[in-house]
Amino acid sequence: MKAARFYDNKDIRIEDIDEPTAGAGEVLIKVAWCGICGTDLHEYLDGPIFCPTHSTPHPISGETAPVTMGHEFSGVVEALGEGVTDLEVGDHVVVEPYIVRDDVETGPGNKDYHLSKDMNFIGLAGRGGGLAEKIAVKRRWVHKISKDIPLDEAALIEPLTVGYHAVERAGGVKDGDVALVGGAGPIGLLTAAVLKAQGATVIMSELSSLRRQKALDAGVADYALSPAKVDVVEEVKKLTDGRGADVAFECTSVNVVLDTLFDAIKPQGVIVVVSIWGKPAQLDMQKLVLKEVDLRGTIAYVNNHPDTIKLVESGKINLKPFITGKIALENLIDEGFDTLINRNETAVKILVTTDPERLENAH
Amino acid sequence: MKAARFYDNKDIRIEDIDEPTAGAGEVLIKVAWCGICGTDLHEYLDGPIFCPTHSTPHPISGETAPVTMGHEFSGVVEALGEGVTDLEVGDHVVVEPYIVRDDVETGPGNKDYHLSKDMNFIGLAGRGGGLAEKIAVKRRWVHKISKDIPLDEAALIEPLTVGYHAVERAGGVKDGDVALVGGAGPIGLLTAAVLKAQGATVIMSELSSLRRQKALDAGVADYALSPAKVDVVEEVKKLTDGRGADVAFECTSVNVVLDTLFDAIKPQGVIVVVSIWGKPAQLDMQKLVLKEVDLRGTIAYVNNHPDTIKLVESGKINLKPFITGKIALENLIDEGFDTLINRNETAVKILVTTDPERLENAH
Repeated sequence: MKAARFYDNKDIRIEDIDEPTAGAGEVLIKVAWCGICGTDLHEYLDGPIFCPTHSTPHPISGETAPVTMGHEFSGVVEALGEGVTDLEVGDHVVVEPYIVRDDVETGPGNKDYHLSKDMNFIGLAGRGGGLAEKIAVKRRWVHKISKDIPLDEAALIEPLTVGYHAVERAGGVKDGDVALVGGAGPIGLLTAAVLKAQGATVIMSELSSLRRQKALDAGVADYALSPAKVDVVEEVKKLTDGRGADVAFECTSVNVVLDTLFDAIKPQGVIVVVSIWGKPAQLDMQKLVLKEVDLRGTIAYVNNHPDTIKLVESGKINLKPFITGKIALENLIDEGFDTLINRNETAVKILVTTDPERLENAH
Repeated sequence: MKAARFYDNKDIRIEDIDEPTAGAGEVLIKVAWCGICGTDLHEYLDGPIFCPTHSTPHPISGETAPVTMGHEFSGVVEALGEGVTDLEVGDHVVVEPYIVRDDVETGPGNKDYHLSKDMNFIGLAGRGGGLAEKIAVKRRWVHKISKDIPLDEAALIEPLTVGYHAVERAGGVKDGDVALVGGAGPIGLLTAAVLKAQGATVIMSELSSLRRQKALDAGVADYALSPAKVDVVEEVKKLTDGRGADVAFECTSVNVVLDTLFDAIKPQGVIVVVSIWGKPAQLDMQKLVLKEVDLRGTIAYVNNHPDTIKLVESGKINLKPFITGKIALENLIDEGFDTLINRNETAVKILVTTDPERLENAH
């Protein structure tokens, strides 16, 4: 079968490899659509970061480069391994793409397996990936979805779940809360979608007018402000009777955005850092201390897929506006990665398939 | 009566001023002992910061410099103003030294009056101070204490309450939790005292051997580590089976200490910043994000005096070891401020009195 495999930075190859089979306790999935993630771009441009190198195997998967890429995907169950009795062939599914040690607790009440030692991701550190025709995944990480969710939109459930967990880290929001989201890139938009679905008023701060328009058109922002044109802090104060935002989300890894969130947050408010920072941040501690702000990190998700899927099934979140391209696996680099790297103001999520029929129906 | 009054930086004068009287709803207190706070030193060296200037009155108290100083004090009720019926002359009391607007809610359930607009402190921004013979205070801010607590130790209840609120901001601790405290200055020591009283194992990191010894002698630290001699992060890991500290408290405003806390905290742990930072901090955001750390600011206290007083009354906290000097008000600068500024490794809390008899009994 065809698969996109990471060899090294700037060296991702579309190759023919053996098809996987469903081992005991595994589910064989025919991939429908797989999104390209910012993490994939980082591996391509600056990697290996999450991916193992040619010489050092990942301590859990035991694999070295080349590894199949892709961790944001949807698909259809094609076969069930021994002992898997609670799914059926033909079920629509998405994958929570974790690689964790076998002795890590991952039951429903567990809230920290995503921080366990050597944790990594399917589609980055081994165990196949969604940028291929098929993948075999342990039952634990497979989540059934309603057939009412189109499979292209379902491929966005993985990054949406990142937003869900970020909102959970903020302590959740309730009707009428005001949330400020710094940055309307893919994760900012999907975090905003969760906030809106949970009843918050969402203010987004974003330099790009195209991204601001996307946030408004997609219905995930009530207000989309340009920090080049307005004083975002003043606007937030105006919209909250001078109080400040109840929660804020840093989705840019830009220091001036972090500063703005600190000025715009209410006393005892929570700022969640969702973005990955390549360099240290400068933090005015007086703002943290004198306003008793909580600055919280969030990474990926942990037992959040079921609730996120329910939110999508309820119709409260429409993922269609965030799909800005659909391409064949053969064109992954030129139509996928290059587009996201060079035209990232208009591209939100580009979906990839190996199935010519799906691609044809998409156009 | 005698009072220490702030005129400007390096200009605090011991003067004779009129005695206050208990107005309606007020309590007249004869001060027993008043501690010197780091904030007082900052006003003296670099002020006015909290204190009003000669020309700009504080928006709530309406006062300009000179103002009477001192906000960490204990005393005896000398008279009750009209309408005050739940205290008696002779009661021992401490003061929660807030100046807040009259329309701010300060009832038992309220947890944010300390962050209200223009909030300031008695003994800094007006309404008298503890560095005087007497003070009249609104009933709301007067807390009765058991006569079993010596009045000298009671003067430390105010800074102890800062530590109590810092621990509350961390979400509290339970038996067996491991707390790491960076810095064994007065606030670090008193935060450690609260942590010990609530059942935590306390590890302190402190460069000064004299301060480390004080923490051990006072019984507030189980381990007192020198970051110049040992790898504090490794030691914390060893003491926690590799997990990391459950909670950590930044009490130094030194960046390398903050970095150490980030490395030593467990995943999803809480770091509380208790100290006042004069310059921005550099923060490695990856540590916040990938470990899902909570970095929380804390300032002063809010409805924490009753619980803190109970903790002292229960005998779980012994404040005596932290009293390192007792002086007369006349010697405030030379024996008090100068000692704290020049010999701050051995001095923890210096108490001041205007009462010659108390001073005589102290020696």
